[in-house]
Amino acid sequence: MENPEPLQSRLLTSPEPSDEDIALYRGLSADTASGVAVVSTVVRGRDYAATVSGFLSVSYDPPTMLVCLYAESRIAEAVRTSGSWALSLLGSTHQGVANWLASPGTPLEGLLAQVPYRRGTATGAAVVDGSLTYFEVRSTAVHTAATHLIIVGEVVAMGSIASGINAMDPLIHFGSAYRRLAR
Amino acid sequence: MENPEPLQSRLLTSPEPSDEDIALYRGLSADTASGVAVVSTVVRGRDYAATVSGFLSVSYDPPTMLVCLYAESRIAEAVRTSGSWALSLLGSTHQGVANWLASPGTPLEGLLAQVPYRRGTATGAAVVDGSLTYFEVRSTAVHTAATHLIIVGEVVAMGSIASGINAMDPLIHFGSAYRRLAR
Repeated sequence: MENPEPLQSRLLTSPEPSDEDIALYRGLSADTASGVAVVSTVVRGRDYAATVSGFLSVSYDPPTMLVCLYAESRIAEAVRTSGSWALSLLGSTHQGVANWLASPGTPLEGLLAQVPYRRGTATGAAVVDGSLTYFEVRSTAVHTAATHLIIVGEVVAMGSIASGINAMDPLIHFGSAYRRLAR
Repeated sequence: MENPEPLQSRLLTSPEPSDEDIALYRGLSADTASGVAVVSTVVRGRDYAATVSGFLSVSYDPPTMLVCLYAESRIAEAVRTSGSWALSLLGSTHQGVANWLASPGTPLEGLLAQVPYRRGTATGAAVVDGSLTYFEVRSTAVHTAATHLIIVGEVVAMGSIASGINAMDPLIHFGSAYRRLAR
């Protein structure tokens, strides 16, 4: 049922988007609702972990996931180096963890000192305690996309350790804020 | 703060996951909360559109998005053929549209007869009326990942046509059901 009224779209200047284009895109893309997860890995005995909203289940057969990471970030380099990672899907009680691991300036030393976690069975990566679900993943491909890496991998282990309210109450990111689902 | 209690993980049988592995993964990955969008394109004057929850904003500079589509689907073939697509982010009033365009058996003839839409300025693809935001995208890369394609593209136009409640009320997919955010 076509509405003949034209859209008031912003057309992007090509090939170089303007600062205004980018600012507008940041605002509009913030209205993409998503779950919130922690991606983690271990390199030479050291834990790396960061909050992400850019992750997806890609395929069931074989179970395949992807995560998008800023290519210049510490976590991207660590995940590339280790070749395996865990994704912990956060619940509504995890907002403090999400904030802490989203800060660009988090120190590596003591990164997880205040974050309750257990060790992933297959990869040894930190899995946030109380997560709705978690997946341990072995990378199978890394694609560059603009400033980011799309890291695709095969799930090698998975489970759920949610208890209490978290089990049905995922943490949601929308409009640059953390939100919860209506009951 | 490591919890020494071991995780009760399911380890996947490699290289071929069992039917039980896949069934468990389907269940666990359903607890990934996400926004809901319609991906659409036009090939030889014909509209193609499908509901998706596998999409992401990848990068701000340049504005870049991705969508994951089952490789054997009609919509994947259409998006590959046309090279451009629109992504309409649905609001809570769009549940009927989401259900309709998620049905595998939707007829191509009359696909959008009951769906209010306008034409995208840059691509001509259908944009669902009342969407929180929409993006028109030109594909820049297609990656195969298991049964799916990861289609990455540059945003060429964007805007918002949400009105009333939809503006701050995204449709959410969680636990194999449509949900809304708590206020």
